[in-house]
Amino acid sequence: MAFDPATLVYDDRGLIPCIAQDAVSGDVLMMAWMNSDAVAKTLETGRVTYWSRSRRSFWVKGETSGHVQELVDLRVDCDRDCLLAVVRQTGPACHTNRRVCFYTSVVDGEETELMAPLAG
Amino acid sequence: MAFDPATLVYDDRGLIPCIAQDAVSGDVLMMAWMNSDAVAKTLETGRVTYWSRSRRSFWVKGETSGHVQELVDLRVDCDRDCLLAVVRQTGPACHTNRRVCFYTSVVDGEETELMAPLAG
Repeated sequence: MAFDPATLVYDDRGLIPCIAQDAVSGDVLMMAWMNSDAVAKTLETGRVTYWSRSRRSFWVKGETSGHVQELVDLRVDCDRDCLLAVVRQTGPACHTNRRVCFYTSVVDGEETELMAPLAG
Repeated sequence: MAFDPATLVYDDRGLIPCIAQDAVSGDVLMMAWMNSDAVAKTLETGRVTYWSRSRRSFWVKGETSGHVQELVDLRVDCDRDCLLAVVRQTGPACHTNRRVCFYTSVVDGEETELMAPLAG
C-alpha cells in the first residue's frame, strides 16, 4: 500500500510524536514532533525533519549543529498516531551535548544522571 | 535529587508521553500516555501503568491480557516532557498480538508489514 502522510493520526495541533532510535546501538535518542509536511520532507530528503513547536518552523535535525539524523527506516505504529524513526545519528542527539536525551534515571526515588555531556 | 512526578512537564490534558523499550532486545515496543498519578503508580508498583485517554482511567498494561510490563528503569528526557520506560515485557506489547506496535515500515513509499501477529 502506498504511504500517504495524510493517513496518519495527528493531534489537535496537527502534530504526531516521532521517536528517534539509533540504528547501530538501538538506543532511544529523543522524541520530537512532526506535522504532515515534516513527515513528507523526512522521507523525501532522508534527513529527519521535525516541526519545532517553539519556533513554529521546520527543524531539520542537525542543520545548525551538524548533529544530523540520517533516516534508515520510518515506522508507523498500530494506531497510526506515533512514528519511530530508525536513524544514523551523527554526534550527540541531545541539545545538552549528551548522546541521548533520556540521560536521567529514577532509581529508588532519586534522580541519577547516566551520562555526562560529550567533550568538545 | 528526589524525584517528584509533579516536576515533569505535562500537556494541556495533564499527560506526558512514555516510550516503552524492551530491556532485553532494545526494541521500542510502544508509546502511550501517563498522567502524574500514573507515573507515581508505575514507580510504586513496578508495573507500567498508563492513562487511557479513551477510557479515562488507569491502564495497568497487561492487567487483562497478562502482557505486563515490569519496570526496569524509568528515564526522564532533557526537557522533562517525555519518559522512557525500560521494561521486561511479557508476551506481545501490541494489542494486535504483535511483539511491538511499530510493525509497519515505510520503504520506497510503500507500507510493509515487518511482523505477523504471534500465534495463540
